[in-house]
Amino acid sequence: PDAAARAGAEERNGQLTKPPGSLGRLEDLAIWYAGWRGTDRPVIENPQIVVFAGNHGVTARGVSAFPAEVTAQMVGNFEAGGAAINQLARAFGAEMSVTALELDRPTADFTEGPAMSEADCAGAFAAGWNAVSEEADVVIAGEMGIGNTTAAAALAAGLFGGTGADWAGRGTGVDEAGLARKAEVIDAGLAFHSGALSDPLEVLRRLGGRELAAMAGAIASARAQRIPVILDGFIASAAAAVLHRAAPGALDHVVAGHLSAEGAHGRLLEQLGKEPLLDLGLRLGEGSGAAVALGILKAAVACHSGMATFAEAGVSGG
Amino acid sequence: PDAAARAGAEERNGQLTKPPGSLGRLEDLAIWYAGWRGTDRPVIENPQIVVFAGNHGVTARGVSAFPAEVTAQMVGNFEAGGAAINQLARAFGAEMSVTALELDRPTADFTEGPAMSEADCAGAFAAGWNAVSEEADVVIAGEMGIGNTTAAAALAAGLFGGTGADWAGRGTGVDEAGLARKAEVIDAGLAFHSGALSDPLEVLRRLGGRELAAMAGAIASARAQRIPVILDGFIASAAAAVLHRAAPGALDHVVAGHLSAEGAHGRLLEQLGKEPLLDLGLRLGEGSGAAVALGILKAAVACHSGMATFAEAGVSGG
Repeated sequence: PDAAARAGAEERNGQLTKPPGSLGRLEDLAIWYAGWRGTDRPVIENPQIVVFAGNHGVTARGVSAFPAEVTAQMVGNFEAGGAAINQLARAFGAEMSVTALELDRPTADFTEGPAMSEADCAGAFAAGWNAVSEEADVVIAGEMGIGNTTAAAALAAGLFGGTGADWAGRGTGVDEAGLARKAEVIDAGLAFHSGALSDPLEVLRRLGGRELAAMAGAIASARAQRIPVILDGFIASAAAAVLHRAAPGALDHVVAGHLSAEGAHGRLLEQLGKEPLLDLGLRLGEGSGAAVALGILKAAVACHSGMATFAEAGVSGG
Repeated sequence: PDAAARAGAEERNGQLTKPPGSLGRLEDLAIWYAGWRGTDRPVIENPQIVVFAGNHGVTARGVSAFPAEVTAQMVGNFEAGGAAINQLARAFGAEMSVTALELDRPTADFTEGPAMSEADCAGAFAAGWNAVSEEADVVIAGEMGIGNTTAAAALAAGLFGGTGADWAGRGTGVDEAGLARKAEVIDAGLAFHSGALSDPLEVLRRLGGRELAAMAGAIASARAQRIPVILDGFIASAAAAVLHRAAPGALDHVVAGHLSAEGAHGRLLEQLGKEPLLDLGLRLGEGSGAAVALGILKAAVACHSGMATFAEAGVSGG
C-alpha cells in the first residue's frame, strides 16, 4: 500500500465533521482502502464479483446434500441472472461474471490421489488471475461447487493442522451422518497425502479444487494490481489461506466480509487474523456474504471522501 | 402485518435457488418486510431518512465534549450535504430531510423541571409523525443534538429503572470526569421527577427532548402506515423505547440496525428485544448506523424478490 496516501487519508479523517472515531470501523476501512488505492480520497465505482465453478470427485463419497449436477445447473442460473449473487451484484452496483472450470471433468477423489494435476491446478489459478479486471476498484471472489466445503475443510486442515472433525461443517445442509462422513473423508485425504503437505500450493493441488485455485489466483492478481478484496465465507477463506501460508502479509489487501454459519469459518478467520464485518448466519457461498459487505465498504468510502471538513462546514471542533 | 403476505413470502423463500436457510438472517428480514408491506414479493424503492435536531438545557451542566452551537452548525452541514448521513443516503438511494426543532429555544434543564411543556412535547411528536412520507417503503429516524446522549440515558433510566451510571456513556467523547458528571446529572433528574415516571410519554416530556419526541412520532407514524423502520443507535432506541413501554408490540415493525459503541446501547436493545444487524463501533447518530444497515435490508429484499425458484431455473432441489 501507499504510505503517503494512507497518511493523507488519516489526516483527512481527523478533519471530517464528526466526533473523532465516531464512525468506528468505517474509518479504519476507508483509510485501509485509501492506502491500497494510492489516493487519500478514493471512490468505488467499479466493484467486480468473479464467481468460479468446479466439480469434485469427492462427491462420490456422499459428502453433499445436493447432487453434483447442481453445479452446472447453478452456472446456468448465474448466467440467467437468477441466483442470490446476481441480485446482490445489482443491489450494490457490481459487475459480475461466472467462470465454469471444466465441469465435465471433476477433480479426482482426494482420498485416492491428488485432486488436480499440476497443469490443472496452475490452469485454474491462471483463470482466476486473468478474471480480475484492471478497471476494478474492489474485487470479490465467489464460488459454486457441490462438494467444495469438503475440499475447503481438507485444504484448511492440510494448511493449519487438525482433523476432519475440526474443519468439517454442514455445507449445504448434511445431517449428522453426513457430517461424520465428511470428517472421515477429510481424514482419509489427510492420511493419504500426509507426506506432501509442507508446500501450501501443493496442499491446494492435492486437497483443493479448481474453483479454490481460481479464487486464490484472483486474490493474488488483485494484490498485484493494488485492488482491495472482500473475502467471502469458508471456501473463499480456505483459498485465501493458501496465499497466507505461502507468504506472510499476502492478504493485507483483504478484508473479511462476513462470518459464515459454516462451523469452522471463525477458526479459519482467526488463523488469517481477520475480523469479519458481518455476522448474519449466511452459508450460501457464491460471494454472497462479501457482496453484502460491499455495501459497508462503499458506505465507508462514501463518508470518507464525501464528507465536509470542520473548516469547510463552519462547524466548531470538540 | 399481513399474515397472508408473510405466509406467501415464507413459501416463496423455500422455493428459491439456495439451500434452505443459507441466506441466514437475510431470509428472516425479507419475510418480516413482506409481512409489513402486504406483498409476498416486495421491493424497496423509496427509503426515507428523517433527521431531527434539538437543543438541550442540560448542556449548561457540562455534559458534552462539543459546544451547543454545534447543533445548528450541523443542521447547516446536513442542508449543504456535507455530513456522514448525506453520503450514506446517497450511497443507498435514500431521500433525506432534516427538521430543526426550535433550536433557539432549548429544552429546560431536566434537573430543575420538565424538559418540555406538554405543548412542546406534543408539537415535536407531531413534527416527527408528519415528516414520514406516505411514499416511503422504509424509514430511518436520525438525530442531532448536543447533549442528547444525556437526555436519552435519563429517558432510558426513567423507563426501565437503574441509575445514571447504568445508562450514561461517552457520547461525542467526554472524559472520565465528564462521564461521572453525566451520571450525576441523570441521577439528579431522576430524583427530581421520581414521582412522575409511570407514564412513558410523561417520562419523554420530563427527561427527553424535542428530537427524541420527534423520532418517537416518526416511528409511530411509520407503524400506522405499515412502513418498516430501521432503528439507529442509543438515542433513537431511547425514543423508540417510549413506544415500547406504552404498548407491547409497538416496535414489531422495527429492526435494530446496529449496536452502537455508546456503552448502554446493548442493554437498551435487550430491553426492546432487538438483535442488531451490525456491530461496527459507530457512535455518530444522525441515523448513520441504520443507514449502513439499509444496505442489508435492501440486499435481503433484492434476493427474496429477485431470485429464481428451483423450478424456474431448472435446478435440482436438495
